[in-house]
Amino acid sequence: MNSSVRETAESCKRASRTLAVSSSERRSAAIRAAAELIEQNRSSLLAANAVDLDAANQMLASGEINAATFERLRLTDKKLAEMTRSMLAVAELPDPIGRVLQRTELDADLVLEKITCPLGVLAIIFEARPDAVTQISALGLKSANAVILKAGREVERTAHALVEIIRRALTRCGLPEDAVTLVAGRESIQQLLGMSDIVDMVIPRGSKQLVEFVQANTRIPVLGHAEGVCHIYVDAAADPDMALAIIDDSKTDYPAACNAAETVLVHEKIAETFLPRLAEHLSPKHVKVRGCEQTRAILADQPVEAVAQSEWQTEYSDLVLAVRVVKSMDDAIVHIHTHGSLHTETIVTQDTSAAERFLAEVDAAGVFHNASTRFADGYRYGFGAEVGISTSKLHARGPVGLEGLTTYKYVLRGTGQLAGSYQGPNAVPFTHKKLPID
Amino acid sequence: MNSSVRETAESCKRASRTLAVSSSERRSAAIRAAAELIEQNRSSLLAANAVDLDAANQMLASGEINAATFERLRLTDKKLAEMTRSMLAVAELPDPIGRVLQRTELDADLVLEKITCPLGVLAIIFEARPDAVTQISALGLKSANAVILKAGREVERTAHALVEIIRRALTRCGLPEDAVTLVAGRESIQQLLGMSDIVDMVIPRGSKQLVEFVQANTRIPVLGHAEGVCHIYVDAAADPDMALAIIDDSKTDYPAACNAAETVLVHEKIAETFLPRLAEHLSPKHVKVRGCEQTRAILADQPVEAVAQSEWQTEYSDLVLAVRVVKSMDDAIVHIHTHGSLHTETIVTQDTSAAERFLAEVDAAGVFHNASTRFADGYRYGFGAEVGISTSKLHARGPVGLEGLTTYKYVLRGTGQLAGSYQGPNAVPFTHKKLPID
Repeated sequence: MNSSVRETAESCKRASRTLAVSSSERRSAAIRAAAELIEQNRSSLLAANAVDLDAANQMLASGEINAATFERLRLTDKKLAEMTRSMLAVAELPDPIGRVLQRTELDADLVLEKITCPLGVLAIIFEARPDAVTQISALGLKSANAVILKAGREVERTAHALVEIIRRALTRCGLPEDAVTLVAGRESIQQLLGMSDIVDMVIPRGSKQLVEFVQANTRIPVLGHAEGVCHIYVDAAADPDMALAIIDDSKTDYPAACNAAETVLVHEKIAETFLPRLAEHLSPKHVKVRGCEQTRAILADQPVEAVAQSEWQTEYSDLVLAVRVVKSMDDAIVHIHTHGSLHTETIVTQDTSAAERFLAEVDAAGVFHNASTRFADGYRYGFGAEVGISTSKLHARGPVGLEGLTTYKYVLRGTGQLAGSYQGPNAVPFTHKKLPID
Repeated sequence: MNSSVRETAESCKRASRTLAVSSSERRSAAIRAAAELIEQNRSSLLAANAVDLDAANQMLASGEINAATFERLRLTDKKLAEMTRSMLAVAELPDPIGRVLQRTELDADLVLEKITCPLGVLAIIFEARPDAVTQISALGLKSANAVILKAGREVERTAHALVEIIRRALTRCGLPEDAVTLVAGRESIQQLLGMSDIVDMVIPRGSKQLVEFVQANTRIPVLGHAEGVCHIYVDAAADPDMALAIIDDSKTDYPAACNAAETVLVHEKIAETFLPRLAEHLSPKHVKVRGCEQTRAILADQPVEAVAQSEWQTEYSDLVLAVRVVKSMDDAIVHIHTHGSLHTETIVTQDTSAAERFLAEVDAAGVFHNASTRFADGYRYGFGAEVGISTSKLHARGPVGLEGLTTYKYVLRGTGQLAGSYQGPNAVPFTHKKLPID
């Protein structure tokens, strides 16, 4: 094992202890200082990025990376401005650490508090995007977590330059520079994934393949950017105009997003009239419709491909929409539970009781009535910043804000109480009185 | 693969859908009905248990199980009464499902709610204890989760008889009987651990070996009963009488518990006077002290064995206590972070600012000042019922009540809103107004 990755991780762990007891003001100041230094060092950052871009040009030529990756890699003045703007926004968010979630008097002079605290060390494994460095560092510092960044080879020089600046800002604000560290080399991924004694959470940022590789190769909890196979169920009692607008927005606003819709389920009662309107509406938007047998029969005069069975589980991330006619809302829910990714599911209907049943029965991170699936997003939900969207049910579900980077501990303040006094024939009773939390 | 285990799990998943939308009243009624039926069927339960005991007698003779396991297996009238009493207590707890955790107006007529909901299907793998069946079934039903029970071979007949009764109670209350299911056979463990598409959480109940096996062999989240290597730090400013009483209670009240203390760290300033008193105090309690070099030097006239390096990480689960002299509180904290299990750590001191620093800096599920480690317990914390104690930082940390068996979903109710309207040059602003949650 490369001892330097281990040593880097250990120094990051030590820094995390200092960070955990640092003040919110100091951590926010470090984020602001880093943003300022980035502004001041734009030219050297662009120069570092130029070296990465040169190498990436060759990878592009050899087909190792594609044009989209190349574009994500490129730093511009506009991108730098967006990065620092977003860091400053994180600095302004309320402190997620030290919040009292519960306060209970167990007995006189024996008070239990449940308070939020940082997870400790976050390992972020990312590809291509330089803004992952600034965003995760800002979110980490705000939540008092130290971070170990593992950048993809294609973005290594840029990441290194950014991390050096952030570390300078940490030192300037009296925080340990090892709170933000960078490790290099493909083999360091496996090493990080094996350090369950040091790393408290892994956040993979990149391709679906990367996320799946990380999930399959570690016992450390993974906060994965989710796959999204989101559905829109158009009920018999739907307002068809509203349904068209919601499908349009959910599919075309940003097809590559995980909260874009992949499948529309249409109640058979309105399929005959609704499907031709849907096809007509989507055609000028260049959305390709693929259909079940019944959909294809209704749209017989149009070039609608059949949906393969496996496709119902496919995240197209493209202007392609699968359409299925269902006999009932129950069938729609069974389809969603069978093929969905538990991400975000919408019902379009004017029938409130049908809507409420859908919202109650569907098991997903987001269940929406008469709204676009695209609202499933930390910014739109009002969280200020987003770490990612989770389709896991544990710890954090749906869009994850700073809260997802925290845990809690129970603090008990006593005056010498013994558990033995509260049991047996002469047991002192607990008071278990809820106290105000401020 | 044994298709019947898969089929059982699938029917349990279907039942979980019904349970998820059932009323709290109905689920609590089913728990009460099950308790009543257990009361009424005591003799047949004891008869089933007698068959298990007969077989267990042979396992005992062949050394396959030990006397403690045999005792845990034995059902008695008293144990049955305790089981039903505890079920009725769970039935009385507040409904953990459907609680609104957050309510936000995103815009006019676009309201987001974060509400608690069940995880879905819990798989419980347990050994010996018949009360695991009733306790987990009650906690599962209360939190609207379906449960798959995998009983150890030694308790299979008893578990089967109990599950049959609980299923009758479910039917009687209009709930699907498959909400509580039992699978048998050692090979079914591997099968359950592979069903990440069906099982939402695994709860191993039994030996440390069992818990570790489960953790190492599944990608399903595991709520493990924790290992506890808990410390008591006796500060230079400790009240020695209080320290003795707290150490005594933490060690001797129930040495096999995970919240029992294993190691005492004593500040060197008071070690010379405190350690002889500690040895004197513990000797009549049959607690064997093992010490670091300095401890052994101070207690030179006593038979104090040396602590092996690996022992600092050992959960003795017995009347054995490791003692170490430390130069400072910082050294004590480093020792705890190096060797502890992040379970529960206590400082004994009259110096409030030292105490507050310890509470802030120590990274553990429970950090206590002047109180016994034995308070780390769901009942003592006032949770009503306990699923277990978690030393994981994610999802649930410390004693876990019903809340640990829930997740949440985001419910968004709109009137046709599109994400596209809230972005770009003519973006409608979000209101992001916090609404009262009742």
